[in-house]
Amino acid sequence: MRYLHTMVRVKDLEKSMAFYELLGLKEIRRMDSEAGRFSLIFMAPEGQPECPIELTYNWDGDKGLPSDSRHFGHLAYEVEDIYALCQKLMDAGVVINRPPQDGHMAFVRSPDNVSIELLQKGERLAPAEPWASMENTGHW
Amino acid sequence: MRYLHTMVRVKDLEKSMAFYELLGLKEIRRMDSEAGRFSLIFMAPEGQPECPIELTYNWDGDKGLPSDSRHFGHLAYEVEDIYALCQKLMDAGVVINRPPQDGHMAFVRSPDNVSIELLQKGERLAPAEPWASMENTGHW
Repeated sequence: MRYLHTMVRVKDLEKSMAFYELLGLKEIRRMDSEAGRFSLIFMAPEGQPECPIELTYNWDGDKGLPSDSRHFGHLAYEVEDIYALCQKLMDAGVVINRPPQDGHMAFVRSPDNVSIELLQKGERLAPAEPWASMENTGHW
Repeated sequence: MRYLHTMVRVKDLEKSMAFYELLGLKEIRRMDSEAGRFSLIFMAPEGQPECPIELTYNWDGDKGLPSDSRHFGHLAYEVEDIYALCQKLMDAGVVINRPPQDGHMAFVRSPDNVSIELLQKGERLAPAEPWASMENTGHW
């Protein structure tokens, strides 16, 4: 597995980027989605592109989130085999909140409800049961 | 500056370490404080010791914390000159919630209240004003 980023949500992108730039972080990658109406900005210290934060900015705001608790989004890791890992977690009693229906992405929560994103390394895997038809559980 | 870790608080250390080990993280460093009655466990993916999470475990529990909002603790960065950076932040209107009175550590919060720890690289700096006598502000 490989650490990818720590995600935090931002309400005011310009103000937030200015803040993180003051700290010394620099934008290393950016994705704007017209369709999804969101932007993802990756910012990292110089020489540490492997340790970025991901700023998630929803153009229309984050509705329905509790006041203070979701500014931190999740920890993200890339994994060798998302099906094998989810099976191992499930066997150990971990709820797969967002199963890898698409062979690409899953979410679980730590015992303290820290949201953790798992992303399949490389190409997404071919759809496979029990994942393809597994329902989502709760939120993450 | 250099990314150090993402800190998360855990209520049940054994259960939490088991969870993160299932994910594939390994303990790389540990500090137990008898005096402070806490343990810090750093866990990272293999080959990425520079991208750890820090599990903070308070032996007597985390009292007085809101239900769901403080499991995520903070992002931590090591900086070249903590006084210079705090001055730059303050000049830009950022509140230094925990000023570097000790020449070693400071805390600020992002525009979205994400807590950010700043640690002086190497030896702590000699005490200097305005930091040495600056009061803490709010929480972080």
